[in-house]
Amino acid sequence: MTTLEQFLEEKARKTERALEARMAAWPNAPETLLKAMRYSLLAGGKRLRPALALGAAEIIAGEDAPALPAACALEMIHTYSLIHDDLPAMDNDDFRRGRPTSHKVFGEASAILAGDGLLTMAFDVAAECGDLRVVREIAQAAGAEGMVGGQQLDLEAEGRALTLDALRQIHARKTGALIRVSVRVGAMIAGARPEQLDALTCYGEHLGIAFQIADDILDITGDAGTLGKPIGSDAVNQKATYPALLGLEEARALAHEAAAAALEALAPFGREADTFRALARFVVERQH
Amino acid sequence: MTTLEQFLEEKARKTERALEARMAAWPNAPETLLKAMRYSLLAGGKRLRPALALGAAEIIAGEDAPALPAACALEMIHTYSLIHDDLPAMDNDDFRRGRPTSHKVFGEASAILAGDGLLTMAFDVAAECGDLRVVREIAQAAGAEGMVGGQQLDLEAEGRALTLDALRQIHARKTGALIRVSVRVGAMIAGARPEQLDALTCYGEHLGIAFQIADDILDITGDAGTLGKPIGSDAVNQKATYPALLGLEEARALAHEAAAAALEALAPFGREADTFRALARFVVERQH
Repeated sequence: MTTLEQFLEEKARKTERALEARMAAWPNAPETLLKAMRYSLLAGGKRLRPALALGAAEIIAGEDAPALPAACALEMIHTYSLIHDDLPAMDNDDFRRGRPTSHKVFGEASAILAGDGLLTMAFDVAAECGDLRVVREIAQAAGAEGMVGGQQLDLEAEGRALTLDALRQIHARKTGALIRVSVRVGAMIAGARPEQLDALTCYGEHLGIAFQIADDILDITGDAGTLGKPIGSDAVNQKATYPALLGLEEARALAHEAAAAALEALAPFGREADTFRALARFVVERQH
Repeated sequence: MTTLEQFLEEKARKTERALEARMAAWPNAPETLLKAMRYSLLAGGKRLRPALALGAAEIIAGEDAPALPAACALEMIHTYSLIHDDLPAMDNDDFRRGRPTSHKVFGEASAILAGDGLLTMAFDVAAECGDLRVVREIAQAAGAEGMVGGQQLDLEAEGRALTLDALRQIHARKTGALIRVSVRVGAMIAGARPEQLDALTCYGEHLGIAFQIADDILDITGDAGTLGKPIGSDAVNQKATYPALLGLEEARALAHEAAAAALEALAPFGREADTFRALARFVVERQH
């Protein structure tokens, strides 16, 4: 049996090998631009979104290879969003994954372009899957009604008191939409039946909520060394978070509730979904 | 017979109507984000890229409607590139098309997000054409080997002496790639045969060169009122331009040479390509 750790390592390795190949396939791109794109893209990270796309394909069809282009595209989009979020005009963060952020190393202009380049090329890579629905679902999840929209709402919320519902709305778009679509496109590429797609979509939705609440909690309780970023930055930036709104204990309870709903969604599946079950438990128990 | 002016007006009107419809189709996007996207997208402009996509489709198949989603996507990508290019960290321009630039009106963070939103949604819109090749060609032309790459090269060239060849390389990517692909995707969607696609690609390539040289010339000889931006900004920003490198007369000669090559490429076509012929002539003769 594959443990969760083995699963995540294997998917991360596959994704990173495929991303390396993509980044070597554009010889006409300027050296500095590629360097900046690679710096953020190949800087480690959990590779959660690729693991979800590849894992969903595996649950449905027993193999993950057809979902590899979509997995790469999702990680490229996630990485671009981190580069742009870290910019001085946005969150103004100096460190990410334990290293100086893109604009600290390459300057603001090149960081903006590295993000633009990753976002643009992500759609060339996603299209390799040969399925227009995959391109459209990814664009919609990453776009004005999804991730970019969530980022805008987050900007507007800074320093303001939020209701729990408003906070949920922000996170559903800012991080939830891309996590949800990762599971969906993996399943779609593998030829999931409608009821299978619905069940996995429900899993992805609740996993995203659990992940975000856990992330907020870790910003308070975590260790700067293992997290690779300063602790307490949400409080410094006056960001509304689940623990700030509900207290630590109630936030923890809400995360476990979301994880339980994610597990519940997997009820129609057998042993083939065991790593996804382990992932839902891990997300709320992780220390970094 | 349709005059060039009628042609450009008709294509601009169709494109703007379609863009309006797209921007109204995302009710879940935050109000401010949509406002910033609309501000730049529906601010007028020549709509050259949509006209090329729609015109190419018309030359090949006698109708332009199937190319409308691609035309919208191209204008959205062009607009995002203007928003990001104008940012303080890039060209730091305060005016565009006679109005304050996006970051002047909405702030830097929202301008970055408006650009990201337009770029992302462009691929959802492009995919409506139902042809994965269109998505991939647009991503490649706009991406690391195309427009974004040209923008990076342009950054690196600022304040440095360039050879004519290096200047050509920058423009081929920064503006040429998107103009070329506009013609290509229009032709592809209309079902162009390989030799038709080659001829129109050659037209698009030379038209892009003529357009860029003419643009450089207008920055020196044009009128701020009709151009909608300050005259001489290239010289202030120490940008390498064709007239700076070759002198005004030789730059004019080069623009006419490129326009002649564009006309030559249309030789296989009959009267149906007459507006494209008029366009090649207009590009080097325009005053704004």
